[in-house]
Amino acid sequence: MAAPGPRQSSGGCPCPWPAARRRLPVLRWLPRYSLAWLRLDLVAGLSVGLTVVPQALAYAEVAGLPPEYGLYSSFMGCFVYCFLGTAKDVTLGPTAIMSLLVSSYAFHEPVYAILLTFLSGCIQLAMGLLHLGFLLDFISCPVIKGFTSAASITISFNQIKNILGLRGIPRQFFLQVFEMLRRIGETRVGDAVLGLACLALLAGLRAMKSRLPQATRVESLPVRVSYLIVWTTTTARNAVVVLSAGLVAYSFQVMGSQPFTLTGSIPQGLPAFRLPHFSMVTPNGTVPFQSMVEVGARLAGTGWAPLGLTPAVSGSLCSRRRLCFANILGSFVSSYPITGSFGRTAVNAQSGVCTPAGGLITGALVLLSLAYLTSLFYYIPKAALAAVIISAVVPMFDAGIFRTLWRVKRLDLVPLCVTFLLCFWEIQYGIMAGMLVSGILLLYSIARPPIKVSDGDMLLVQPWSSLHFPAVECLRDAVCSHALTASPPRSVILDCCHISSIDYTVVVGLAELLQELHKHGLSLAFCRLQDPVLQVLLSADLEGFQHFPSWEEAGEALGCPWCSPGVGTPGCC
Amino acid sequence: MAAPGPRQSSGGCPCPWPAARRRLPVLRWLPRYSLAWLRLDLVAGLSVGLTVVPQALAYAEVAGLPPEYGLYSSFMGCFVYCFLGTAKDVTLGPTAIMSLLVSSYAFHEPVYAILLTFLSGCIQLAMGLLHLGFLLDFISCPVIKGFTSAASITISFNQIKNILGLRGIPRQFFLQVFEMLRRIGETRVGDAVLGLACLALLAGLRAMKSRLPQATRVESLPVRVSYLIVWTTTTARNAVVVLSAGLVAYSFQVMGSQPFTLTGSIPQGLPAFRLPHFSMVTPNGTVPFQSMVEVGARLAGTGWAPLGLTPAVSGSLCSRRRLCFANILGSFVSSYPITGSFGRTAVNAQSGVCTPAGGLITGALVLLSLAYLTSLFYYIPKAALAAVIISAVVPMFDAGIFRTLWRVKRLDLVPLCVTFLLCFWEIQYGIMAGMLVSGILLLYSIARPPIKVSDGDMLLVQPWSSLHFPAVECLRDAVCSHALTASPPRSVILDCCHISSIDYTVVVGLAELLQELHKHGLSLAFCRLQDPVLQVLLSADLEGFQHFPSWEEAGEALGCPWCSPGVGTPGCC
Repeated sequence: MAAPGPRQSSGGCPCPWPAARRRLPVLRWLPRYSLAWLRLDLVAGLSVGLTVVPQALAYAEVAGLPPEYGLYSSFMGCFVYCFLGTAKDVTLGPTAIMSLLVSSYAFHEPVYAILLTFLSGCIQLAMGLLHLGFLLDFISCPVIKGFTSAASITISFNQIKNILGLRGIPRQFFLQVFEMLRRIGETRVGDAVLGLACLALLAGLRAMKSRLPQATRVESLPVRVSYLIVWTTTTARNAVVVLSAGLVAYSFQVMGSQPFTLTGSIPQGLPAFRLPHFSMVTPNGTVPFQSMVEVGARLAGTGWAPLGLTPAVSGSLCSRRRLCFANILGSFVSSYPITGSFGRTAVNAQSGVCTPAGGLITGALVLLSLAYLTSLFYYIPKAALAAVIISAVVPMFDAGIFRTLWRVKRLDLVPLCVTFLLCFWEIQYGIMAGMLVSGILLLYSIARPPIKVSDGDMLLVQPWSSLHFPAVECLRDAVCSHALTASPPRSVILDCCHISSIDYTVVVGLAELLQELHKHGLSLAFCRLQDPVLQVLLSADLEGFQHFPSWEEAGEALGCPWCSPGVGTPGCC
Repeated sequence: MAAPGPRQSSGGCPCPWPAARRRLPVLRWLPRYSLAWLRLDLVAGLSVGLTVVPQALAYAEVAGLPPEYGLYSSFMGCFVYCFLGTAKDVTLGPTAIMSLLVSSYAFHEPVYAILLTFLSGCIQLAMGLLHLGFLLDFISCPVIKGFTSAASITISFNQIKNILGLRGIPRQFFLQVFEMLRRIGETRVGDAVLGLACLALLAGLRAMKSRLPQATRVESLPVRVSYLIVWTTTTARNAVVVLSAGLVAYSFQVMGSQPFTLTGSIPQGLPAFRLPHFSMVTPNGTVPFQSMVEVGARLAGTGWAPLGLTPAVSGSLCSRRRLCFANILGSFVSSYPITGSFGRTAVNAQSGVCTPAGGLITGALVLLSLAYLTSLFYYIPKAALAAVIISAVVPMFDAGIFRTLWRVKRLDLVPLCVTFLLCFWEIQYGIMAGMLVSGILLLYSIARPPIKVSDGDMLLVQPWSSLHFPAVECLRDAVCSHALTASPPRSVILDCCHISSIDYTVVVGLAELLQELHKHGLSLAFCRLQDPVLQVLLSADLEGFQHFPSWEEAGEALGCPWCSPGVGTPGCC
């Protein structure tokens, strides 16, 4: 679906307001909606729905919340994206990474998670209104890769305890690994067998799916029917696996024994539509809004980590405007923070979705599950859900990134490794340390830009990149140290062809440099200034400022005999 | 004193260790010390000493500490700089701005101020060892100007209450102005008359000093003697004014009446040499180290503001290495944080100082005052000290900066005005808000570099500055929006002549851009890549990557008929 520009003629579209169509993209495709699209959107919507329902139950466990909150989080994003979305295949909802981030803020208290959703939305909205969205570009690729790779390992290990049927394992990664190894003997055989079987089944179906050839219409009916069955099974593999595991568990229940740990009862019915709670009543008294927020802020930024990472991790999947509406509205229906899901977006695309209307089907399926199917979810074994999570997060681990960075840019291994390693300690510390390291590397390269100094009769100094204010000290040092320590001291030509803009601090620094050199009887000539930079320097009215269009002319001017160093009439040029 | 390079032959210097001379600059000049230098250093040391003693008493009042702490802070810097200093005229000690910053952390408790001195020194040391000093370059000129101008007004107003003899005026600027206007009727006539007289006298002497011609040796003895008297009076004007005011107050005291508010008794003797206290005993129990530090940190960064601003405000006056030793050692003698003083450095230079040995004289004078003169300081009227402060800080106000910035770079007015205005609310908020604003402006220019797009048969895209990782999104948007929305869609030539280095995030962004364009049957050619950038891109092994030394060659290559868009064999180049 190419998005028509706002000034393009409306063509067949009966909507007369380009501005409205720009703000409400649903108006672009709804008038042209056809039955053929409906059929494909229905199939895609159902496929995504059959993926999201088991994933939602599973991710809620990662977030440390009761399973129903996963479902509460899964429909509002679909509806919002249907109206505001421009790409046909993006789906918003709970994701493994966001669930992990929420888990360190929510302390198993849904009230905190819902408040976080609301605040995320508001902060995203404020950033959009203040045009501060560019700040998110400062989360670099190595940090995201390090974080997602570490998260993939952390989440997988976190779920292995469910596959082994162990309880009371601590949340911290290293303690978790230690406890799990120590108590490996307590493994519940039923859970372990079922979990591994589900994992194997999911991996097999996934491999089948990736090898499935495109069906052609010329083939015979039986071939096409069996293709359809295979396609459905592999696409909705999460649902198939969870359903099968649930049936097995139910059969055992009917036979009077239960070798599996089950999900247990989930309250039936849709969540209430209401404002999130801004305070919480506990046995020890009411926790006011301020301390709820503070608790999050004190957890070293977990509060904002999801806000920052949401759009960064989901990449170009979904704009902030949609996410902020999805989160604010989501918080009214007890959702925890959501974002764009890569996995389900792929399912959607592969199912041949035509318009964002597929989201309506998905959302409706989630609502129907909440209304009628929760009693069936009772029998879903936790090991099956763990298998769903593990098979979703394992592909996020990118082992090749270390080798790639070693080959391409070794310095970027530093933020990658810092993020990756510290994420095992505490996910938010890893993210922040990584951002800090990559920020410091960035700031360092701004404060200390490459400066090429060519010695000769004159000194030719060439900043190899733009001059922002922190770089001016470094430029002054480079010029002074070369010009004054040489014997005899040299005049300087400053080649500014790479400088695209300067600020007042740089102007002051250059003025001081001019003075310093004049004091020693030397000249400083600027050459190849870009026009805006020249304007600024001219308006600053620097003493002794001289500009030439090329090195040669500058060299000639400085080389005139009555100007040469040693004759002692500085400033004559 | 030219600093000899470490590898230069030692010349007349008997010291055989260049490394030692580099680390301990005193070894450079001490072996060559002469009697002629001693005479000049003595004069300069005394001049500075006569300036620093009254200023120290006055600045302690600004810092909210008892007057003796000003003197405690005034000698260690002189001694340290004598051994470690390279410039002959720099003097370290208490300054008005640092006193103001300390006042918001110390709450009239010297223990806090001394701990702050120690921590400042340690943090400066750590930053030096970790090579993080470049971070201080991120305090821009408009922020420093805004802050010093606001501090000049704040400190002056703060002292007007002493000139008017008013008591119990709140510290906050606006409340202070309000209360002062409300209670102007309570003015003590004696204080006001004395204070205004001192101000006038100081201004007059200052004006005389600036108009004093250089003495020549040819003039007659009476002329030279009267010149010496005028020179001494104008140079040591602070001491002269304070001494005169003290004499007047003493005369009144002898006559049995006292119209002035006096400094009061100051404990005699040198401070003990001991470690700073890391906890504090109060009537309500012991305050441990952690909460002492936390209180400072919670005051929104006051704790670190002095650390950051010290070298930034004192400019190139003094390196961090000297400051950190001066502060760490200073904390052992109950000093509050010190820095380089512009005013006294000027006095030192004008007095003809020859070596940093002048500092020894100054320090000795301060120690002598502490040992023997504190009983005399009892009679110094507070109004006279207030006049000393006001005459020291008024020149820091730079009214012209607003006009200059309007002319040179209007955008820099934003951090200037934010800093200037918020400093009246609370000095540390002003500094931080200013740094935040100038940081955001800097980050914005990095994340959104100027990109020139020239349309034609091909699209020529030219990033006008270096590409750091936050800029890659912006580049992709610029290329995609121009290349894909044009009809017919255009292939793209990316001119990289201004790009001096790229990181992995940029590489990933460029790879995605190549893919995106190939998907639409378009090509992307790089031209004029600098060598390190080309190496990185080659090692990344991008699909469809092609590089040409100039636009023309790139254009020719893209323009070949089997490559043109529409023919449908993308990637053939």
